[in-house]
Amino acid sequence: MCEALNQPWTWIEGGVSAPQGFQATGVKAEVKYKDKYDVALIYSEVPAQGAGVFTRNKVKAHPLVLTQKYLENGVAQAIVANSGNANACVGEVGDRAAEEMARTVAAALGIKREDVLVASTGVIGVEMPIERVVQGIEDAAEILKASEMEPAWTPLKKVENAHQAALAIMTTDTAVKEFACELPCREGVIRLGGIAKGSGMIHPNMGTMLGFITTDAKLPATQLQDLLRQAVDQSFNMVTVDGDTSTNDMVLFLANGESGITPVGEEWVAFQEMVNSLCITLAQEIARDGEGATKFLEVQVNGATSVEDARKLAKSICGSSLVKTAMFGEDANWGRILAAAGYADAEFNPSQASIYLGDCLVAQDGQGVQFSEEVAKGILTQKEIKISLVLKDGEAQATAWGCDLTHEYVTINGDYRT
Amino acid sequence: MCEALNQPWTWIEGGVSAPQGFQATGVKAEVKYKDKYDVALIYSEVPAQGAGVFTRNKVKAHPLVLTQKYLENGVAQAIVANSGNANACVGEVGDRAAEEMARTVAAALGIKREDVLVASTGVIGVEMPIERVVQGIEDAAEILKASEMEPAWTPLKKVENAHQAALAIMTTDTAVKEFACELPCREGVIRLGGIAKGSGMIHPNMGTMLGFITTDAKLPATQLQDLLRQAVDQSFNMVTVDGDTSTNDMVLFLANGESGITPVGEEWVAFQEMVNSLCITLAQEIARDGEGATKFLEVQVNGATSVEDARKLAKSICGSSLVKTAMFGEDANWGRILAAAGYADAEFNPSQASIYLGDCLVAQDGQGVQFSEEVAKGILTQKEIKISLVLKDGEAQATAWGCDLTHEYVTINGDYRT
Repeated sequence: MCEALNQPWTWIEGGVSAPQGFQATGVKAEVKYKDKYDVALIYSEVPAQGAGVFTRNKVKAHPLVLTQKYLENGVAQAIVANSGNANACVGEVGDRAAEEMARTVAAALGIKREDVLVASTGVIGVEMPIERVVQGIEDAAEILKASEMEPAWTPLKKVENAHQAALAIMTTDTAVKEFACELPCREGVIRLGGIAKGSGMIHPNMGTMLGFITTDAKLPATQLQDLLRQAVDQSFNMVTVDGDTSTNDMVLFLANGESGITPVGEEWVAFQEMVNSLCITLAQEIARDGEGATKFLEVQVNGATSVEDARKLAKSICGSSLVKTAMFGEDANWGRILAAAGYADAEFNPSQASIYLGDCLVAQDGQGVQFSEEVAKGILTQKEIKISLVLKDGEAQATAWGCDLTHEYVTINGDYRT
Repeated sequence: MCEALNQPWTWIEGGVSAPQGFQATGVKAEVKYKDKYDVALIYSEVPAQGAGVFTRNKVKAHPLVLTQKYLENGVAQAIVANSGNANACVGEVGDRAAEEMARTVAAALGIKREDVLVASTGVIGVEMPIERVVQGIEDAAEILKASEMEPAWTPLKKVENAHQAALAIMTTDTAVKEFACELPCREGVIRLGGIAKGSGMIHPNMGTMLGFITTDAKLPATQLQDLLRQAVDQSFNMVTVDGDTSTNDMVLFLANGESGITPVGEEWVAFQEMVNSLCITLAQEIARDGEGATKFLEVQVNGATSVEDARKLAKSICGSSLVKTAMFGEDANWGRILAAAGYADAEFNPSQASIYLGDCLVAQDGQGVQFSEEVAKGILTQKEIKISLVLKDGEAQATAWGCDLTHEYVTINGDYRT
């Protein structure tokens, strides 16, 4: 999370409860483990506009199907999510469990069942321990209701509670992914919050990725959907891939309008940038937290024919096992980078391609150039490595994020070049 | 390599030199390592019909481009290959090196330069030590010429020499991949030989895959090309993927007609089966030899809408890191199998899908069934594991081969379900 020059918005605390009218909490319901937060509840005090982006996997988890249905009208007021069980591939009992989760939230918070979005993450094909989840939801709702009743409820407590929601959606994640920011506007302030989970080796077939985003901006659902779609395409989809994801992946976005502000003109542009930055920052954190990762990789492609091709090239390089092991092995093996671009199923002219590791040019016009192995080593020993593929085919650019591939596989591949 | 019931052909010794009129050898040219066979030469005493299947990577190695050009007329008489250097992405010096290899073979064996096919495997972007390769080729040619001059040249020696060619194309491979077989026909015997190399983690982006196949059958080049294409599609392409391969991948097939037999009718069917079996056996050996692999995986898909979809599904399951780690962890995590099918970009109905581990049904109609964890464990502790996805969408079937994914990544993913 970097502060860009002249960036009109700032990072703040509070995660998904930072925007006005939102509250969130997490509880320990023993879905799979004892003493782990595993049920998260996010709630808007008023019905909100809702948008979602979902996995393209042909096999869809039960809560995902329900959430897609409930989102058809573009209205939502709560998100309930559990870790420890994916509620996928268990048949009708799974459909009923997802409905039961929505019903419990609705009853406990006094809202419409159809305004509750449901998400799950965990093992596929095992029946949900629905009684424990229901109990967890009721406990979570109690906490949120207490906060409404209690004027002395401190902002700090609100932040702590929202943090527990972020904890509750984690599975093999080692770090919480939670951010919030605010944009000063002429008529006040718009706030934005987001949490995410997603571990696995990151691409090609990671574990479930979930993202929940809240804002108090006032936007119609269709605009919210477009905003989310374009943000996801340059963020979450650049660490994972729609076509390569799990049965449960989803990113949800609620806008409750409580700021009273509909950003337009420059403020709309700034708001859009803030949403993109939040999503990119969450996506980067997912990449950084790849299982067993020791290095964070950023792959930038410039000069591509189209944004689509630039994205394919960046993701192909970032997802290549051979590139990832070379980075772990701190080996400036640019041939693997070019080869991974070669099978990206994207149009480009390899004989005009240049490759940089950090600022160090290692290949030009599709062939190696003389470079200082020492300088390259200096770059590759860093915890964060930037790989650039510079083409002369067009103007399009894209960035993907990932991590290195470590250990045993590397003892074979990491030193292949030297 | 299994003997099917009533199989009309038999496995024999001799590798690529088993068919009449073929010789092969390998020498230690110190391309990269001392004391490793690294230059292979395969030679037909008469010009042969030639066919080839090549990588779809946009970045193509210099020898591959040359070989494609030389094969345009469908005639070839020798294959020269080196390990230790891919001769890729080094610019014009690479084109010249590939040409120099062909020229050296042609001069040493007294054949046309355009009839020499060139292949390389090894590190990308490093200039070939062409003097050492040239010396190696000359040494290899000497050995082959000596065998022509020397009637006392024993069959055993011929087999040993051919074996050295198989050794010379290995890189991180731990086992030689070399087979031969013969088909008794009414007018005599047709022989077939093949060697291959290919290691890496196997899918999604393995190291280079090379395959060289020889036969003394009499076939026109166009028929040979069709035969090779369909054999590759059900063998080598089911461990790797055209779209996901290296800059150097190729499979070459020479038919010199020295048996005098053009198989037709039943004999053609039997010959075709023999070619398919040889290619499948070589492909299985590649999968078995995946880097760090402890288990061999066979994934069979039945009842798919089309062969193309069946292949996509089988490869997606076989290439899934999460399935591979589950197999290493001996965990009957069928949900990962179904999820991997789900992102295969193939049409199928998940709610009618059944999954078997060995003979043990673990999921039916898209959901888990009661099964004995003990029985499943018994299957998963084997060195060879068969996974079946049975669909009700059509009649098509396909099989893919792969290996498990081991160690560090597994300590995180292997026990995720239990």
